[in-house]
Amino acid sequence: MLINSHFGDIKETYLFSEIAKRVNDYKAANPTADIIRLGIGDVTQPLPPVAIQALHETVDEMARAETFRGYGPEQGYDFLREAIAVHDFKARGCDIEPDEIFVSDGAKSDTANFTDLFGDGNIIGISNPVYPVYLDSNVLAGHAGSPAGDGYQNIRYLDCLEENGFKPQIPDGRLDIVYLCSPNNPSGVALTRDDLKKWVDYALANKTLILYDAAYESFIREDGIPHSIYEIPEARKVAVEFRSFSKTAGFTGLRCAYTVVPKTLEVTMSDSSKPLKLHAMWLRRQTTKFNGVPYIVQRAAAALYTPEGREQIRKTIDLYLENAKTIRSVFEEKGFKVWGGINSPYVWLKVPEGMTSWQFFDELLHRYHIVGTPGSGFGTRGEGYFRLTGFGSPEKTREAAERLRRI
Amino acid sequence: MLINSHFGDIKETYLFSEIAKRVNDYKAANPTADIIRLGIGDVTQPLPPVAIQALHETVDEMARAETFRGYGPEQGYDFLREAIAVHDFKARGCDIEPDEIFVSDGAKSDTANFTDLFGDGNIIGISNPVYPVYLDSNVLAGHAGSPAGDGYQNIRYLDCLEENGFKPQIPDGRLDIVYLCSPNNPSGVALTRDDLKKWVDYALANKTLILYDAAYESFIREDGIPHSIYEIPEARKVAVEFRSFSKTAGFTGLRCAYTVVPKTLEVTMSDSSKPLKLHAMWLRRQTTKFNGVPYIVQRAAAALYTPEGREQIRKTIDLYLENAKTIRSVFEEKGFKVWGGINSPYVWLKVPEGMTSWQFFDELLHRYHIVGTPGSGFGTRGEGYFRLTGFGSPEKTREAAERLRRI
Repeated sequence: MLINSHFGDIKETYLFSEIAKRVNDYKAANPTADIIRLGIGDVTQPLPPVAIQALHETVDEMARAETFRGYGPEQGYDFLREAIAVHDFKARGCDIEPDEIFVSDGAKSDTANFTDLFGDGNIIGISNPVYPVYLDSNVLAGHAGSPAGDGYQNIRYLDCLEENGFKPQIPDGRLDIVYLCSPNNPSGVALTRDDLKKWVDYALANKTLILYDAAYESFIREDGIPHSIYEIPEARKVAVEFRSFSKTAGFTGLRCAYTVVPKTLEVTMSDSSKPLKLHAMWLRRQTTKFNGVPYIVQRAAAALYTPEGREQIRKTIDLYLENAKTIRSVFEEKGFKVWGGINSPYVWLKVPEGMTSWQFFDELLHRYHIVGTPGSGFGTRGEGYFRLTGFGSPEKTREAAERLRRI
Repeated sequence: MLINSHFGDIKETYLFSEIAKRVNDYKAANPTADIIRLGIGDVTQPLPPVAIQALHETVDEMARAETFRGYGPEQGYDFLREAIAVHDFKARGCDIEPDEIFVSDGAKSDTANFTDLFGDGNIIGISNPVYPVYLDSNVLAGHAGSPAGDGYQNIRYLDCLEENGFKPQIPDGRLDIVYLCSPNNPSGVALTRDDLKKWVDYALANKTLILYDAAYESFIREDGIPHSIYEIPEARKVAVEFRSFSKTAGFTGLRCAYTVVPKTLEVTMSDSSKPLKLHAMWLRRQTTKFNGVPYIVQRAAAALYTPEGREQIRKTIDLYLENAKTIRSVFEEKGFKVWGGINSPYVWLKVPEGMTSWQFFDELLHRYHIVGTPGSGFGTRGEGYFRLTGFGSPEKTREAAERLRRI
């Protein structure tokens, strides 16, 4: 058998395995150290009570033949798609219909699986630093092209730097596809309405497809920061949006997300005479290769849109944002340059002059017993920066802040 | 953006939508008709009590911060992988280790996603008729090649005919990849040890990768029918096996399955100098593009391996097999040629001389108010045959048999 040789093109970063190794080595040598983990992007608060209740109720439905549910629609049940359309879009003036919403098991799967729709030879814009799955999934699919220098033939890195506020800038040349992640992972920076409008205008002018990852949308608290790209006029013609219940409602271990593919998304097809719309393609992809999200999980997700559910979610997000603020404040006090932590659970900071991201990682671990994530793990332009998260418990986060005051 | 033009190559069969249309049209014209559905492959019995109990218990774990679980391992939790290795493999003398088992959300996803590992230009063997996802996923990925005649350039159809007992035969030429489905969907025919040994020998001699879909394994009751391809010596060198809890334990709406990728599976890489094993490639694919199965669902799956769980599953499968026997018997009485229904929930029958599959569909619907599936929906060689399933309720199935006695 001939295998997909692009698997050999991927650059292994071993970011989280290297972190685990260094932490384990340190613990082995210092077994009494009380290590606080503010590294990974996983949540710590339990599921909201409305989700727990919906799960129990629907598990009981699955126990009786009269109410048992087998295969559901691959795109998700209407009860969930309708709740999403009403609350996440129409309530914000976005013209998104339930049948443009595809429920899935994760934004990671969706962003990665969306590469199934791409042909070869597209020029793809990806922020640097950013969540690694955009790049990795394109490399595996062969869409990134051959490795070239630090990058790949078909990838244009959008450098997110201190001088541009860690925001991807409109490039000089044309992109076929661009990934935008806001609020951003890892920098915590959120794009404003003006920022997004520039990208939508660029996409309209250049027939660029925007893949908009809004997995951290629920952390947005400031005015002027769109919650959806569809708040920008005409975005329906150029953008797909990825959302997730993982960080919104602690579903990282329960698995539910969704992707919006507007029916108005027209695809320029220079390599085929057959007209296919992205919506039809994604529907085809999902019905052929996916079997939908568990019924009980979709009911738990739908329960989040009740008034009680929304209140419960808000409280948990407030708690994480308070954690992020605590972390941000202590680094600000100490004179660090800091971004994020306001509309985002992520705090992004510049490590002290002359240190690398990994050196700062070791210093935090060895001197303060705190685990963070080196910025260089998210791309070459992340070197010299560091990510901490508000996803810890409030107690541990306050304890971490106390320790950091001694920096 | 350039799209994947292979989406234009797929041949739409609209099998289940056409069935739905004809049933709805008939119901509209005959509103009092009591229609019995023995068409789709979905289960009707509720989840086993052990699964219900495990779900309730773990939902409660998710309600408390101390026991809450966030992201799990993409490959599945060890507790489930170990239970699978012990009960499904080691108990049958198959040398499969827990870390060769990848837990997933469905055998459909896994068989389709496995095409991510293929390079271009492989010659792929696919039974005709068979479950349509093997072909469709390869067409979408471009691995099937251009449409050519009734088929595609790189696809070799293995005709499953009355004269070969609906079993795929070893071809004259070489295949790079072959899909085998046993017990088969749609024919219900299961491959014997001898049948499978011939395929393993062929694969060893030809360096062919066998993708073995054993989603209906739990329906096997006869001796001499392997439950796993790894019961055949040296199959570890040539075969990947797909399994599912969907039909085993009624998980079609809960979503859990697994794929076995032995570490001994060496890949012939004629297009690259980098050695990559299939196990490492699948691990890379899953960690990059998948986030694992819900913790609560994995606990429900693990509960199936307890003595009570195994007993509960067995009872349900017995019920479906009894249904299949009821259907099979009535057609045998009436002089039809019938296959399957013994180690399988599917009964496959030859329609009366001179009728097409769809004509027989209409006759069953209009005269007996019974819905089945036309064999032609599973491939050109399915024309003239028809699939019925044992997944109905016992009452409805017996009622259907009474009606069919009037044929």
